[in-house]
Amino acid sequence: MALADLEPLVRNEQGIATALGVLRQRFGERLKTSNSLREQHAHTTTYVPGQWPDAVIFAHSSDEVREIVRVCAEHLVPIIPFGTGTSLEGGVNAPAGGISIDLSEMNAILAVNAEDLDATVQAGVTRKALNEHLRDTGLFFPIDPGADASLGGMAATRASGTNAVRYGTMRDNVVNLTAVMPDGRVVTTAKRARKSSAGYDLTRLLVGSEGTLGVITELTLRLYGIPESISAAICSFKDVEGACKTTIAAMQCGIPMARIELLDAASVAAINAYSKLDYPLAPLLLLEFHGTEAGVREQAELFGEIADDNGGSGFEWVTSTEDRNRLWQARHDGFWAVKASAPGKEFVVTDVCVPISRLADCVAETAADITQSGLYGPIVGHVGDGNFHSSLAVDPADAEEVARAEALAERMAMRALAMDGTCTGEHGVGQGKRRYIRFEHGAGADVMAAIKTAIDPDSIMNPGKVLALD
Amino acid sequence: MALADLEPLVRNEQGIATALGVLRQRFGERLKTSNSLREQHAHTTTYVPGQWPDAVIFAHSSDEVREIVRVCAEHLVPIIPFGTGTSLEGGVNAPAGGISIDLSEMNAILAVNAEDLDATVQAGVTRKALNEHLRDTGLFFPIDPGADASLGGMAATRASGTNAVRYGTMRDNVVNLTAVMPDGRVVTTAKRARKSSAGYDLTRLLVGSEGTLGVITELTLRLYGIPESISAAICSFKDVEGACKTTIAAMQCGIPMARIELLDAASVAAINAYSKLDYPLAPLLLLEFHGTEAGVREQAELFGEIADDNGGSGFEWVTSTEDRNRLWQARHDGFWAVKASAPGKEFVVTDVCVPISRLADCVAETAADITQSGLYGPIVGHVGDGNFHSSLAVDPADAEEVARAEALAERMAMRALAMDGTCTGEHGVGQGKRRYIRFEHGAGADVMAAIKTAIDPDSIMNPGKVLALD
Repeated sequence: MALADLEPLVRNEQGIATALGVLRQRFGERLKTSNSLREQHAHTTTYVPGQWPDAVIFAHSSDEVREIVRVCAEHLVPIIPFGTGTSLEGGVNAPAGGISIDLSEMNAILAVNAEDLDATVQAGVTRKALNEHLRDTGLFFPIDPGADASLGGMAATRASGTNAVRYGTMRDNVVNLTAVMPDGRVVTTAKRARKSSAGYDLTRLLVGSEGTLGVITELTLRLYGIPESISAAICSFKDVEGACKTTIAAMQCGIPMARIELLDAASVAAINAYSKLDYPLAPLLLLEFHGTEAGVREQAELFGEIADDNGGSGFEWVTSTEDRNRLWQARHDGFWAVKASAPGKEFVVTDVCVPISRLADCVAETAADITQSGLYGPIVGHVGDGNFHSSLAVDPADAEEVARAEALAERMAMRALAMDGTCTGEHGVGQGKRRYIRFEHGAGADVMAAIKTAIDPDSIMNPGKVLALD
Repeated sequence: MALADLEPLVRNEQGIATALGVLRQRFGERLKTSNSLREQHAHTTTYVPGQWPDAVIFAHSSDEVREIVRVCAEHLVPIIPFGTGTSLEGGVNAPAGGISIDLSEMNAILAVNAEDLDATVQAGVTRKALNEHLRDTGLFFPIDPGADASLGGMAATRASGTNAVRYGTMRDNVVNLTAVMPDGRVVTTAKRARKSSAGYDLTRLLVGSEGTLGVITELTLRLYGIPESISAAICSFKDVEGACKTTIAAMQCGIPMARIELLDAASVAAINAYSKLDYPLAPLLLLEFHGTEAGVREQAELFGEIADDNGGSGFEWVTSTEDRNRLWQARHDGFWAVKASAPGKEFVVTDVCVPISRLADCVAETAADITQSGLYGPIVGHVGDGNFHSSLAVDPADAEEVARAEALAERMAMRALAMDGTCTGEHGVGQGKRRYIRFEHGAGADVMAAIKTAIDPDSIMNPGKVLALD
């Protein structure tokens, strides 16, 4: 990803200076301009270089966000919403400076409606904080992207993760949201009914808009009953094709798998080394089943039979919390294991998603491409969704290696598009994937641009993200 | 619904005459102007008066739709997409004339991807035709709004129906769609991956837009494996509250009910008379469970226990197709039973949806309101979604009775909104509910108007629907 290829955004120095003056008067000490805080608010968790905002304001309410937006709108100053800073695509970077609105102190859980299976939260509440709060209700919020991200940020990037195969993504689990629009109007996108046919779906328009259409300040989320029983299972395959065929057959049978994760042999090697395990150096599927006690037994046993038919080996399933944690340790340690296996490296993170019928081909071609490129890039996948990631290890100081990884990431995106897939299954577009939007959406990119222009004509909302306005 | 309250749309006589001339040259005999066909294409299935288009063209491809749209765009002539004409809110009416594009001959099933659990169809394929085509694949498309509507029309109105509680609505089950936009560009909104974070969600923007942003010509839909076993159950309750409490408790337990339908005592009376049954004249729940053989047994038995705890009586569950059809006959005959119970009447159909915790109150207050109004209006509900309908019987020639029913329908919509619900759960806005959009969405109505204006600046796409542009 040669960021320099994207148009440079011009800083509005005078507007920024004026807005900073006005906002400092209003927010006093809560407007921060220290280098450490500005650097932290351009944190990207990947090799993408940070681009600092001019100031950070810790907002405490939708009204305060509205005040900030109005000042920025008047002076044409960029606004960058910030949750926990776990974006993987430069989503919180400030390429033209501006104000980072930090929502982490908007962390109130406003309502839990147990009968309606929903909860309304401020945008800065993290998924773990919500689940901690729900502990005694018998309910939980399932979406788990790995990081303990803010729920507002997860909505903004249309996040998903390991259990989307059963519970869907943020697209499916946001009932409504409240957002401050670029003109300072506060919009609540829907009522709290489980479904509606009343007009355009503004909820789904803002979910995945990555802060480019408005600042999400509150949201109502769907909750689920904690399953009576949970079982975990694990199974090795001699090749990725067997793992994919097993997954497809299990889904066609209607087994409601809660999680089904693929680790390739390179990932298994990294995890064996890191966690002192001894799984065969072959593709591994990790599964979780949710249901009644009899139900999860039935699901696991049926899955085991399907795996057998497709060359699976070492199938094991368990139900106790201790045993489940043992089996899933391999997956939970995955990120750290891969990091530890490439000391001193940063990562070019990829995120393609293809129709599941193409997944085996896509993974196989990608693995061959990685080998040929001479890079180290273990693959993990949310295989029930057709989504997989390769983390390509690079030395950021080695321009040639970075360029090689970027070229490989581009080939991965283009390969996914050619297979009727997407350049990003769950990480969002941010800065890094803007170049692919026209390839993926064709004339749809113009429709997106028309919507952006209609709602944010001065492009003050997280400029330089999602769309390459040309 | 006093349609006269809405602004009259002005006919562009000259543009219509010119466009008709151009289109007649291009489409010859496939452009129809007979009164019978024009009348049929303004068919509304309710008491809403029809407003005829000037001509009907039976399109055969996205390219032909694009040709029609380009001519209409050039001459500022309204375009009204037409599927099967089962709209309940005047969705296919032509208040300012124009061209009805009939998509019923675009009825090809373009692809069934069994491994990916999806199918791509032309917009005129009906849901029953798709399921007939899928018969030997072990897969099915679940969304069932009652009518054998076209899948394009179902997407356009964000339809749902009896099994949305398990399988979601059209919002959740459209993978992507192809639409001809008002400027004649053809947009495919997404690739075929199960999830994506690549830019704004144009799929969800067009689902539910009721033809006001573009003409849907093709769509890819999610399919599901036909469950190994299906069981049906039935249970009476002394009041609606018991039925609602049972539903809430069952959902909190995570019972994955495939259908859960409420009939009020008036509906039961109509059905007893029509179908020669003898159910107690009390609220009735009808259920369907999908799963493995052991799973549906477990679900049904658990549900029975919960119903017992909440005053349910006469609980019965069955699995054979014959027995299931017997139990569900009451629901399948519902529409005809109600029609037969009010001979010579037309119906003002309502469609509110509230958070399920408010459903018992909403139904009770509505029932009292119906009684007080002196109207006949049995209630049926998709109780797992908090969605219910009362069909208010009126003599269209009796202006006072129609006005009384319209006032009642308005109170129902406002009551639902006051309970954090929606004026339309699944029928769409059409002409009839435009007046409620501002009450439901507040400033969100302005955002919708901005989107409409950006995409369809001349308002040629199904004008006079969804938004009251003021």
